[in-house]
Amino acid sequence: MELYFLGTGAGMPTTERNVTSIALRMFDERGTFWLFDAGEATQHQILRSPLKPSKLEKIFITHLHGDHIFGLPGLLSSRSHQGGTEPLDIYGPQGVRTFIETALQLSQSHINYELRFHELHEGVIYEDEQCTVESGLLDHRIESYGFRMIEKPRPGKLKVDELMKLGVQPGPMFGKIKQGIDLRLDDGRVIRASDMISEPQPGVIVTILGDTRPCQGSLRLAKDADVLVHEATFMEGLEDLAETYYHSTTKQAAETARDAGVGLLVLTHFSARYSEENPLVEEAKVIFDNTVAAKQHQLVPIRKY
Amino acid sequence: MELYFLGTGAGMPTTERNVTSIALRMFDERGTFWLFDAGEATQHQILRSPLKPSKLEKIFITHLHGDHIFGLPGLLSSRSHQGGTEPLDIYGPQGVRTFIETALQLSQSHINYELRFHELHEGVIYEDEQCTVESGLLDHRIESYGFRMIEKPRPGKLKVDELMKLGVQPGPMFGKIKQGIDLRLDDGRVIRASDMISEPQPGVIVTILGDTRPCQGSLRLAKDADVLVHEATFMEGLEDLAETYYHSTTKQAAETARDAGVGLLVLTHFSARYSEENPLVEEAKVIFDNTVAAKQHQLVPIRKY
Repeated sequence: MELYFLGTGAGMPTTERNVTSIALRMFDERGTFWLFDAGEATQHQILRSPLKPSKLEKIFITHLHGDHIFGLPGLLSSRSHQGGTEPLDIYGPQGVRTFIETALQLSQSHINYELRFHELHEGVIYEDEQCTVESGLLDHRIESYGFRMIEKPRPGKLKVDELMKLGVQPGPMFGKIKQGIDLRLDDGRVIRASDMISEPQPGVIVTILGDTRPCQGSLRLAKDADVLVHEATFMEGLEDLAETYYHSTTKQAAETARDAGVGLLVLTHFSARYSEENPLVEEAKVIFDNTVAAKQHQLVPIRKY
Repeated sequence: MELYFLGTGAGMPTTERNVTSIALRMFDERGTFWLFDAGEATQHQILRSPLKPSKLEKIFITHLHGDHIFGLPGLLSSRSHQGGTEPLDIYGPQGVRTFIETALQLSQSHINYELRFHELHEGVIYEDEQCTVESGLLDHRIESYGFRMIEKPRPGKLKVDELMKLGVQPGPMFGKIKQGIDLRLDDGRVIRASDMISEPQPGVIVTILGDTRPCQGSLRLAKDADVLVHEATFMEGLEDLAETYYHSTTKQAAETARDAGVGLLVLTHFSARYSEENPLVEEAKVIFDNTVAAKQHQLVPIRKY
């Protein structure tokens, strides 16, 4: 599982950074990817990435500012042209449905798959066998959400080599062990299922926040996350500007990471005034050492840090 | 006056071609530019061009398909952020206003200038001292328009050197000549104003068509144009596809150029299946020799060809 950054800029595109969109690649786990926000030209960035729109499974929209949603109509149309036929779920604040439906209807865009809209609320918004997604309100100029994806423990693996050494051949006996049923062999030996399955691996937690000032919502969503993606629109010294426009500075993002006890902090959503990311990371590292800055077309592995 | 192609692809962006947008640069004439269509990421293309959003004066939308309009909300927002304060006129089919207003309202995008919408109809849609713009219906799957910009004759220039040789100094006398008033000098000589102003220069005609099958509307709008921009979505052999999807082939575009007696034909709006433009131009040249293919970030001077 990895994050793939499609755009890392705030407000407007620059020649170095497109506006916000982040892919959560789960190619190994489910063969699909999820998208968090889709600023204008997200489909253009996908064209230059290893991602395929037909593999897009869900889109989560943090808030309705243009730099986070104006790429939706084009992306949804192109997904249809590029062979996407599976239903697509869109989770977003009230209004995202009207925006998309107005754009698709007026442009007479024909979509060959089902679009399923889910209006955001606080709490669990999605759950399946692999993971749970929680959403929570942040502190921005308009309704803005963060998302916490909690992977469920991965089931332990069958110790095939050990079983075969004991004379158990692949087949129905393997199935019983997997179901947790102990085996009694013909010679009387008992094989305990729990001995033949490795420990479940704990899942990872990824938190991706929308635009926000430092707030309790961020801390709650980021608590003990393995990876936290946090906006850092401004550098230190511009706290007043951050406060006025409901954004965060590098240090504020780092303080949230430290206080929440996360593994890795990934900064993104940089103001166009900063052409280089290094100075921003250096500021954050003073407070929280395990910090990186996202660059577009960069992969960040999701694991225990 | 020049055309500057921001996007030359049909339907979806590719890594070589963005979707449709064409700028009409009138930097010498009025210090501004106009835009014809604004597919997604038109603002990104402008970033990589000599154009400045603050100098954008008018936008003409040929039709509402997504590859011609999905770049509007971002472009309009960014024009505001980049210092655009002059009113902006948008000419388009019914629905473009709803699309833009819905996007801007839901995203709470604040625009620091006046947006003036003009719903398209056939006939003259704009006129000032420099030019007239006519619009006419084409033959496409949805309401699609073409535009014919007719520059008015440029007034003749004062023959300053000749006047000074005759002893007339810059000042009120120059003003009289410009107004067409003959002068009588102190020594009795008469200077005819008409002799001291060069001939007016005839204006140019540029025709830019939206997506269309070959039709009478195209011919009327393109009649005697100096430059005709015509879609060529498909190559020869795909006439059936062109007919089905209400598009044109290279040869059909060339036939319109020939029959309308234009000076230069510029092909654009190429299907993503064609990675090279040369074969398309070669096909058109068989019928109309003075043909070029538009490439993105290419300038095409507008003059008598």
